[in-house]
Amino acid sequence: MTKVDVLIVGAGFAGIKAACELKAAGRTVKVLEARDRVGGRSMPGEIAGNTIDLGGQWVGPDQRLLMAEAAQQDVETYAQYTTGQSVLEMKGTRKSYRGDVPKLPFLSLLELSRLEKRWNREMDTLPEQAPWTAALAQQWDSQTLESWIGDNLWTEGAKDFARIVARAVVCAEPSQLSYLYFLEYLRSGHGMEKLIGVEGGAQQDKFRGGAWSIVKSMADTLGDDIVLEAPVRSLTQSETGVSVDTDKGRFESDYVIVAIPPALAGRIFYNAPMPASRDALTQRMPMGSVIKLHVAYETPFWRKKGLSGAATSDKRAFNVVFDQTPEDENCGILVGFIDANHAVEATKRGANARRAEAIEDLMAYFGPEAGQPIDFVEQNWTQEEWSRGCYVGHMAPGVMTTYGEALRATCGRVHWAGTETATEWLGYLDGALQSGIRAAQEVQQRLG
Amino acid sequence: MTKVDVLIVGAGFAGIKAACELKAAGRTVKVLEARDRVGGRSMPGEIAGNTIDLGGQWVGPDQRLLMAEAAQQDVETYAQYTTGQSVLEMKGTRKSYRGDVPKLPFLSLLELSRLEKRWNREMDTLPEQAPWTAALAQQWDSQTLESWIGDNLWTEGAKDFARIVARAVVCAEPSQLSYLYFLEYLRSGHGMEKLIGVEGGAQQDKFRGGAWSIVKSMADTLGDDIVLEAPVRSLTQSETGVSVDTDKGRFESDYVIVAIPPALAGRIFYNAPMPASRDALTQRMPMGSVIKLHVAYETPFWRKKGLSGAATSDKRAFNVVFDQTPEDENCGILVGFIDANHAVEATKRGANARRAEAIEDLMAYFGPEAGQPIDFVEQNWTQEEWSRGCYVGHMAPGVMTTYGEALRATCGRVHWAGTETATEWLGYLDGALQSGIRAAQEVQQRLG
Repeated sequence: MTKVDVLIVGAGFAGIKAACELKAAGRTVKVLEARDRVGGRSMPGEIAGNTIDLGGQWVGPDQRLLMAEAAQQDVETYAQYTTGQSVLEMKGTRKSYRGDVPKLPFLSLLELSRLEKRWNREMDTLPEQAPWTAALAQQWDSQTLESWIGDNLWTEGAKDFARIVARAVVCAEPSQLSYLYFLEYLRSGHGMEKLIGVEGGAQQDKFRGGAWSIVKSMADTLGDDIVLEAPVRSLTQSETGVSVDTDKGRFESDYVIVAIPPALAGRIFYNAPMPASRDALTQRMPMGSVIKLHVAYETPFWRKKGLSGAATSDKRAFNVVFDQTPEDENCGILVGFIDANHAVEATKRGANARRAEAIEDLMAYFGPEAGQPIDFVEQNWTQEEWSRGCYVGHMAPGVMTTYGEALRATCGRVHWAGTETATEWLGYLDGALQSGIRAAQEVQQRLG
Repeated sequence: MTKVDVLIVGAGFAGIKAACELKAAGRTVKVLEARDRVGGRSMPGEIAGNTIDLGGQWVGPDQRLLMAEAAQQDVETYAQYTTGQSVLEMKGTRKSYRGDVPKLPFLSLLELSRLEKRWNREMDTLPEQAPWTAALAQQWDSQTLESWIGDNLWTEGAKDFARIVARAVVCAEPSQLSYLYFLEYLRSGHGMEKLIGVEGGAQQDKFRGGAWSIVKSMADTLGDDIVLEAPVRSLTQSETGVSVDTDKGRFESDYVIVAIPPALAGRIFYNAPMPASRDALTQRMPMGSVIKLHVAYETPFWRKKGLSGAATSDKRAFNVVFDQTPEDENCGILVGFIDANHAVEATKRGANARRAEAIEDLMAYFGPEAGQPIDFVEQNWTQEEWSRGCYVGHMAPGVMTTYGEALRATCGRVHWAGTETATEWLGYLDGALQSGIRAAQEVQQRLG
């Protein structure tokens, strides 16, 4: 039986960061990870001989923790390719445009501009540590984002755009999201423009070697302090410490940081049981639904056509696409997402159908050349046993105002991390780092 | 290692009924129960020397399965006491009235009557096996009940009444419920009048010796086929059968019926993992919040005042109260509920505060005599480790239309029961029996 100062459940960015901070402060730690790899929702893959990110990958200039960590680990960034026009398919019509805001009818664009100002104004009223205490929190939390869109937007263009934004950033339908939760997501990500933007926004840069190489490099400094293939089955607290049972045996510590999403944290058996409000939260923060697809071609043929490789659609399942071509252009790669209910339905249809439909969608966006891929890689996060969805756990109406306090409230010797607990860049790798630093500080204070 | 035809997870009404049906058909069964008792959300208790139900207790004339089962087990019913006037406190004013519909302002009553007709009309459009396929399912599932109330009701009386009904029957806030799910709940319970009614409704009769004596009597016929204190930790399916690990060892079978709420079923470790849609459902069906209180007095003093013991309030936490006096009147007992967010908040305030507040509420309803109880028993279902809420798992917007099919869809050798899967009296003991019968039939067909 191993006894350390702090046990950390989950070797994603949050758990690994917490472990590094505590170890740097002279504490003994063990990170218990269910998978046979570190990284959590950051995961490496390969297509046509190129390393790719099957999980989180982009970084924006406002994600200072992630930028600093990458620098610390000697991982460089390079710019997301944006040269040329992007494609928007709406109501069956294909249009191309430059920049982040698609070419919509004039009234829709006017309304979109007012919408962004309104969202910015409303999100700014949310207190950073406790959005559930905002003056209008109860009202915003009593309705879905879909109800809000129906009651507050008038042009079809703005309505569809708002829905696409929600699906793309939270991987849930507007009907499944609390309007308050959505505002908090916007707030924590510095507003819609930053969230969906490339230049200056959250998709501005990518990491050479992949985002996963950051967490891998951090994990390497921990060495044997990480135990892989050790899913935590139960966690027992006593007056003197904590005992954790895993498939790799029992571990003991003074404190524990659980750095996995609430939906998965609820599946650990706690002895004594968690307080009602904490348990209730874990029943009410389901993971989003997303499938990430990479498609490789001999060349980035779209670039020669003056297209950026970016595409969006209001109807197609493969509805958010970006250029992912390697810097040396040894081939052309497109990356994109099937999100929210499109992912649920596509999962039922099976891998062959998903591939055929995705290629068809790419042909509609970029032309017949898209019909001749040389490689295809899909990562279906809804089927990942130790994530059970991505990017993030979300909240339906009535959850944040009732159970929001339980997100970070310490339960005995157990502290909570993971991007769901972040107050900045909630749902992003940057938020995961913030949560790991915060949880490590909490435990440090108690260890004295 | 024990091998049987069918393993059943959970010894509530659903699991016990399934086991009895299969055993009667000549199958070998084992029922694996986490608690040290059978009954699940039916549970016995005692106050002032009288046996009481700390869980489900009432039965209505339309609950034919529960009535038949009680008769089968020689458990008799007696009428809920209704003589005298009921109390309604609204907007700080106390009123008394007869029957099930409180004395509201004329316009509110008019609107309530139209509301019930509308709900009846809308619920009748839901196909019994697949409410998510109704013509307006998507629209109804995209909004909360609270949004629906705000958009469709005009009088404060009708609005408050609709909210009280939702909290009382589903133990969740209108802001937390999908309007489609609420309609399905109404449909499965034969409409609002039956759901909230006493005479002719779901609160018409009680069981001599308690509802728990029914499931106890059924369980007695199973004898050693029930294994108590055996929480199921993992479930492994193969080509040839199922293996289930519990705290009381490993059990094997051809098929398994999991007869616990989806929120708890999601906490079992499945090998191979459950399909994405089933797992997602278990992340999205949280248990309601309710605390059941019994308060005993020397005599049922309210009866002499011409009061029925029934009380409702729009503001007080202890907001649904009924007479629970024993038939021999050896003392007077009031029973009632703190439901939905009142229960969440009251749980945080602690047991002493809850008791003091409940007594205060009863004094407001029934007079100063309520200040002198001789016994007090509370059952906080939000803290029950093996229920984690009551009465039932509910659905937020966007869940039923996306994941409804997964409620009863067999996963390999695993079948699903529990009142959450019922198509009639969903959330009630009657629905639990229906689900147990249905799941047993499914397995019977496969066993051949």
